[in-house]
Amino acid sequence: MAGYALCGSFRATPGEADGLAALLLEAAEALREAEGCLLWLVNRAADDPDAVWVMEVWSDEAAHGASLGLPSVRAIIDRARPLIAGPGERFELQPVGGHGLPSTDT
Amino acid sequence: MAGYALCGSFRATPGEADGLAALLLEAAEALREAEGCLLWLVNRAADDPDAVWVMEVWSDEAAHGASLGLPSVRAIIDRARPLIAGPGERFELQPVGGHGLPSTDT
Repeated sequence: MAGYALCGSFRATPGEADGLAALLLEAAEALREAEGCLLWLVNRAADDPDAVWVMEVWSDEAAHGASLGLPSVRAIIDRARPLIAGPGERFELQPVGGHGLPSTDT
Repeated sequence: MAGYALCGSFRATPGEADGLAALLLEAAEALREAEGCLLWLVNRAADDPDAVWVMEVWSDEAAHGASLGLPSVRAIIDRARPLIAGPGERFELQPVGGHGLPSTDT
């Protein structure tokens, strides 16, 4: 399959992980109809209360890049900035196949 | 949302990443109808030819654990073992919400 996936985390400022997760859920909503956005899932880490993870799958890297310029997304990024102490992990992936996404199940 | 997610990688023995990815695609097929398996996506790393990644989302941790005992999965694990040089990354996650999975879109 074609596609572009990201699995990455943010480190929340202490005590702000709940607020950061809530903002990322707003981002997920803003991206629900974004072109090429197949999966955008917010997660907490099982063993790290300050880490908030996002699993993303896109039709291609350009679609991901374009999403970062959407006004709705930029507004959320601005609101999230004070809640982020720094970047966490970031793994850039090339989906090969599997199941669970509409595009892999057809 | 309830759920259990994993984002993790295997390090293939040199030259065996294609074979390992093919076996993991067989595992994805074997798990297509597994109880509680919402997403099982095989990926290659953009910057590491020896890493093969799996993004998984399950209804709960028990469903993931049960899948490891399925005869079809155990047979694939046995065949994969010679292709794996060692574990890579492993991030155990608690999905909060988002979109792209049937269970998050209802």
